Amino acid sequence: MTLATWQRRAELPLAIAAVVFLISYSWTVLVPDLPRELRFALELVDYATWLVFTVDYVGRVVLAERRWSYVRHHLVDLLIVVLPLLRPLRVLRLITLLRFIERRVAHSLQGRVAVYVALSTALVLYTGSLAELEAERHAHGSNIHTFGTSLWWAITTITTVGYGDHYPVTTQGRLVAAALMIAGVALLGVVTASLASWLVQRVRLGAETASQDERPGEVERLRAELAELRARFGTDHS
Amino acid sequence: MTLATWQRRAELPLAIAAVVFLISYSWTVLVPDLPRELRFALELVDYATWLVFTVDYVGRVVLAERRWSYVRHHLVDLLIVVLPLLRPLRVLRLITLLRFIERRVAHSLQGRVAVYVALSTALVLYTGSLAELEAERHAHGSNIHTFGTSLWWAITTITTVGYGDHYPVTTQGRLVAAALMIAGVALLGVVTASLASWLVQRVRLGAETASQDERPGEVERLRAELAELRARFGTDHS
Amino acid sequence: MTLATWQRRAELPLAIAAVVFLISYSWTVLVPDLPRELRFALELVDYATWLVFTVDYVGRVVLAERRWSYVRHHLVDLLIVVLPLLRPLRVLRLITLLRFIERRVAHSLQGRVAVYVALSTALVLYTGSLAELEAERHAHGSNIHTFGTSLWWAITTITTVGYGDHYPVTTQGRLVAAALMIAGVALLGVVTASLASWLVQRVRLGAETASQDERPGEVERLRAELAELRARFGTDHS
Amino acid sequence: MTLATWQRRAELPLAIAAVVFLISYSWTVLVPDLPRELRFALELVDYATWLVFTVDYVGRVVLAERRWSYVRHHLVDLLIVVLPLLRPLRVLRLITLLRFIERRVAHSLQGRVAVYVALSTALVLYTGSLAELEAERHAHGSNIHTFGTSLWWAITTITTVGYGDHYPVTTQGRLVAAALMIAGVALLGVVTASLASWLVQRVRLGAETASQDERPGEVERLRAELAELRARFGTDHS
Repeated sequence: MTLATWQRRAELPLAIAAVVFLISYSWTVLVPDLPRELRFALELVDYATWLVFTVDYVGRVVLAERRWSYVRHHLVDLLIVVLPLLRPLRVLRLITLLRFIERRVAHSLQGRVAVYVALSTALVLYTGSLAELEAERHAHGSNIHTFGTSLWWAITTITTVGYGDHYPVTTQGRLVAAALMIAGVALLGVVTASLASWLVQRVRLGAETASQDERPGEVERLRAELAELRARFGTDHS
Repeated sequence: MTLATWQRRAELPLAIAAVVFLISYSWTVLVPDLPRELRFALELVDYATWLVFTVDYVGRVVLAERRWSYVRHHLVDLLIVVLPLLRPLRVLRLITLLRFIERRVAHSLQGRVAVYVALSTALVLYTGSLAELEAERHAHGSNIHTFGTSLWWAITTITTVGYGDHYPVTTQGRLVAAALMIAGVALLGVVTASLASWLVQRVRLGAETASQDERPGEVERLRAELAELRARFGTDHS
Repeated sequence: MTLATWQRRAELPLAIAAVVFLISYSWTVLVPDLPRELRFALELVDYATWLVFTVDYVGRVVLAERRWSYVRHHLVDLLIVVLPLLRPLRVLRLITLLRFIERRVAHSLQGRVAVYVALSTALVLYTGSLAELEAERHAHGSNIHTFGTSLWWAITTITTVGYGDHYPVTTQGRLVAAALMIAGVALLGVVTASLASWLVQRVRLGAETASQDERPGEVERLRAELAELRARFGTDHS
Repeated sequence: MTLATWQRRAELPLAIAAVVFLISYSWTVLVPDLPRELRFALELVDYATWLVFTVDYVGRVVLAERRWSYVRHHLVDLLIVVLPLLRPLRVLRLITLLRFIERRVAHSLQGRVAVYVALSTALVLYTGSLAELEAERHAHGSNIHTFGTSLWWAITTITTVGYGDHYPVTTQGRLVAAALMIAGVALLGVVTASLASWLVQRVRLGAETASQDERPGEVERLRAELAELRARFGTDHS
């Protein structure tokens, strides 16, 4: 089996594992006083999704032509599997699902980017708020104790507003914050870039129309002259 | 009647309803100790503008060819009509009016974008400040009590500066804040994109001029040769 | 005398007036315990620079072909003359001087934009800090009392960082802040746009080189065929 | 020896000096209670790296054709050598090393920009945190006392979030902050510009493909007519 086949076949199981993880993770974080049995069950589910991601990663490394180079170029995938702290990043798998939604909703490249950005941002905000709440809830001196506050904080962070009415104090919470800030910089970048490429396109379309009226004229005249030339010969030599 | 006809005819009534709503909404929020009768009258006006928006929305859905698809693609319009919380979004209708102003003031695409952005930003800032003041004024632990403070907060939010000297504490106020932040990201994006497309255009114009000096030369020479060719034949065969 | 002549001749006096105003304004703000006579002298200087700007404005309106339209399109110039609060905006005149510096220092369009942005930002930061200090220094509950603090605050504002360790509390100070924030949004936009246009240019230059190797080939071959054609005829008919 | 030769030969020594400085500087700042002998040794190392930079600068000025112009255009290099405060800027030399890494990792222009930006940002964040910690650690009223806090503060600053939970209070610390803010503005700009140029490229590639299907057709037909013309002549005159 080739790497490409593996990746195509693994797409669905990974997406399902990501959705299952997202539900189980939300449950664990949002309802903290779970009965003991349920908590154990959710931990099993978490372990199962971890297994799916690990099997996929190992399979890809085994099937890669140059294994060492593959590992070096997919360090994030390795870290997601190895570090429990990075569990929430499993949700990023769902962004591959967004591709399918985005294609059905919008048609132009910029429209698709817009849908993609909106859905990814919502997903990142939701998962980031959960991870932040998990990290900060019981920390000493923390000021993020509810999901509402955590979501509000995540929004002020990803837009780079940063009032400072709420902010993380733990190392884990600050790592989540840093991830959200990077997402924020990328968000600003993507929004601006889409608008810019759309404007550049519109301006050029205008210019193109103008210069096409001009230039093909040249070619047109050349063709006309050739046609005339041929016509003359046609009458001369036939 | 087709959907397009409906929309063209509805444009003026909707714009008027939006202006009337903006005045009545400003009055209600900025002058809180209104006499009972006036408050009742303003509520009636608010209801009347709601009716205009609802009739327009129903009309558009009825006239749409694929109604379900139309509803799905115009969810915001539905929410504006259904949720009283989103009343301030009626003001967005006025942005269609801005189109007419913008066309009269500026000529280049970037100039028009600049006027459009300035006017939309002013409108969004004013309406956002009103909505924020309404949400926060009497809230427990709030720090936004006057329109001046609310406007100042709105400016620090839309530019993503976010000092944190004033910030919303209610859910409704935070929703308004999130809307302003999204507007801020879009604002940054539009300003940057306009400048970028203008610069790209200038750089390309320079390049175009250079390459037009070059390339048409080729075509010119081709044409000259054809002309000469034809001239020869002209003298040979006539 | 035409409007263009007036503007060309007014450029130097206005620039001098702006420099003089900047020095006198810095003096007034940075050395608050001035002897009475000096303060009076500086007020006279301030009045003199105001006169230069007013005469220039009146002259331009008188010489404009369509006076009312000219006034409408140059509202900021009117406000600078009418409102003492906007005195610091006189410094913006110096940005026309920057044009001459910028042309001598850099050659490419992006290089010139970079020099222009750096110098304008420095000028805006300096003047903004002075204006903020003047507005906030003696205000009740203010936290900006020295020029150092004011400059630091201006830097955190124009870069849209906004820690909130210092922030204006007076209306006048908040107007200065809003101006700096708008400058900040423009700054971000110009920096990004310059980089984007530079990248787009580099990417296109690569593509152009590739497509020029391709396309002229077509024209080249056409020309070769024409040459051959002519050569044949040349031998046949001469 | 020419300036270019000098610069090529100086590249490796300067990079080594920068790495040595970075290690020695980290050691001095992160382990403050060093034994006296070690502290003295690290100071010697610091002096040695300064000597390398100074010799390089003097050499470049001596070898430059127009020395005064060279000094004017390389003021930052002079300041790095003259002001001990700017020592951390020596690390910027390592960015020339990044060029070599970046070329080996990525292929497209945007990919290389991404790797370059990520590595430079990491380097700037690390060095900025060290410099900030050195400036603020023992300052009166400071709130940055550990490297962890300093790094967290640097991240909130470079992304322009600026919560305000930590901020510099010393002049030296604020200079470091200003440098990080400028880096942040540049970071936002580069990320956005890369995305924009990538999008513009993709949009144009689509347009090019479409217009190439169209336009070469014209040339193609012209060529076909010429071929036919030649064929006729070939049969007529041979």
